[in-house]
Amino acid sequence: MRDKILELLKSNESYLSGEDISRRMDVSRTAIWKHIQALKQEGYDIESHPRLGYRLRQIPDRLLPEEIRPRLNTVKIGRGGIHYFSEVASTNNEAKKLAAAGCAEGTIVLAEAQNGGRGRLSRGWFSPFARGIWLSVVLRPPFSPQEAPKCTMMAAVAVNRAIRRVAGIESGIKWPNDILCGGKKLVGILTEMSAEMDAINHIVIGIGMNVNIAPEDFPPDLAPIATSLAAEAGKPVSRLELLAAVLAELDKIYQHATAYGFGEVLQRWRQESVTLGQEVTVLGVSKQFSGLAVDIDEDGALLVKTPDGIEKVLAGDVSIRPKQ
Amino acid sequence: MRDKILELLKSNESYLSGEDISRRMDVSRTAIWKHIQALKQEGYDIESHPRLGYRLRQIPDRLLPEEIRPRLNTVKIGRGGIHYFSEVASTNNEAKKLAAAGCAEGTIVLAEAQNGGRGRLSRGWFSPFARGIWLSVVLRPPFSPQEAPKCTMMAAVAVNRAIRRVAGIESGIKWPNDILCGGKKLVGILTEMSAEMDAINHIVIGIGMNVNIAPEDFPPDLAPIATSLAAEAGKPVSRLELLAAVLAELDKIYQHATAYGFGEVLQRWRQESVTLGQEVTVLGVSKQFSGLAVDIDEDGALLVKTPDGIEKVLAGDVSIRPKQ
Repeated sequence: MRDKILELLKSNESYLSGEDISRRMDVSRTAIWKHIQALKQEGYDIESHPRLGYRLRQIPDRLLPEEIRPRLNTVKIGRGGIHYFSEVASTNNEAKKLAAAGCAEGTIVLAEAQNGGRGRLSRGWFSPFARGIWLSVVLRPPFSPQEAPKCTMMAAVAVNRAIRRVAGIESGIKWPNDILCGGKKLVGILTEMSAEMDAINHIVIGIGMNVNIAPEDFPPDLAPIATSLAAEAGKPVSRLELLAAVLAELDKIYQHATAYGFGEVLQRWRQESVTLGQEVTVLGVSKQFSGLAVDIDEDGALLVKTPDGIEKVLAGDVSIRPKQ
Repeated sequence: MRDKILELLKSNESYLSGEDISRRMDVSRTAIWKHIQALKQEGYDIESHPRLGYRLRQIPDRLLPEEIRPRLNTVKIGRGGIHYFSEVASTNNEAKKLAAAGCAEGTIVLAEAQNGGRGRLSRGWFSPFARGIWLSVVLRPPFSPQEAPKCTMMAAVAVNRAIRRVAGIESGIKWPNDILCGGKKLVGILTEMSAEMDAINHIVIGIGMNVNIAPEDFPPDLAPIATSLAAEAGKPVSRLELLAAVLAELDKIYQHATAYGFGEVLQRWRQESVTLGQEVTVLGVSKQFSGLAVDIDEDGALLVKTPDGIEKVLAGDVSIRPKQ
């Protein structure tokens, strides 16, 4: 009933009288009124005019599954189930639990806010309510565990293309897992896996996107290094539209990688990288060195040219030194 | 109270009268009698003589935490907690749950029987009640995910040494994760990990050891390819003693690998391998080939010499062709 009323309102740009709705749905006007009140509670902006009736002005700025489903343009991603939280500790943690319990591939987890959002290596991730996309995707890829880092790269090229398409800004990929704009972080990707030594049980790709966060709303320690799509585009960005684009791009490239391997991913990654061609400093667990980031190899490792030769970087942090 | 009575019985090889125990513990003879009955229920073989009193003939053939603890000769392994099940689906699954919930490193999970025991690649693992050691160990190593396969090798050398020491049989390691005797499987190792791309969250090493399984008790499909320590040694093997040796060996080599790297592990693995020097057939996901297993490299990959050159084998099954 509620869904039908919502559909009716969505399909009409002008007013619909309560009498009209009541006749079409064959229920009392009081019942209609009650459902309209409930929809308003959920955040739907519905105008009630004493003579003209009801009009849907705006859907809520929420990533509600019922708003996502009609926008899904995917084969797998989002088709395994959409788990939505108003607030949760970490979407990756929820996704890992679902995956361990056997959920379908393509299951996604979304939250309006995370109170324990995580970045790489147990760092925190700032995840304010309804201002970003805090998303985790469960995959069960046929790849070997050694190929898992390329799933992060796959997610990066998908997200980067979605951002360019929806927000029209010049973003780029920093090795291995961030998307930057003007040197500041727009998106972080945290890939986690459960694996045997020769097979992946599941992969959870966590994607944290700063969408409509005002620069002054970042905590002081993040403000100099973080930015948002809205800040860069100079206007708010529809989270629903952006999410749909991310899921569609990820779906497409994942299907491609599964069928044909990671050649396309690595090629696109190279083209959209802001790391290659830069002087970088590599901060590893045990050592630190600087050099020119010249390429990535077929495993996704960063190749850094130093006076001693080419260093292959698989793990560890890479800080990009600004050009003089 | 129960523990004190048990300790008293253990420290006396001859009979202890109920009166004697009752006086030492300052409780009634009826209370003593009740505790003795409970201990018998648990499987402790206690002789009751009308005049002489009680005598502990044998502790139960169970891997009870209270029997394991006094035998622990380790720094880490087993110190994080011992979780004991009479029967469970899979000790690895329990260990993974505990690890995800944040249990301490060195936590171990044991079951007398598994009804959903798993081998590699979702194969089953025959785990009859009280006839094997079905063990999982939780580690939180500082290694990168790329080094995880070497943890399997580390477990293999630890288990192999424990077997040789306790059962005195000539066992050897088959790449990457089995221990064989006379070409038949004694032990399987299933290592699983939860990892980010550049850090391991935790590793669970599952070790399934066929200890006191009679050859005729293996299912028909396993009988030709599986054996047990008792079958090879020609006598029953104490599971408690063997378990203590496995934990001690694993503890020692893990500490060494953490401090100095995997050099020692790989060296011992080479010495105890039954794969190196053999003609092997490699059954991969996409291809199959044969050649001579000549060595392992520093990543633990098997190097196979074929007419086309050296093939490096990371994942996939290796079947060892018997010599002509």
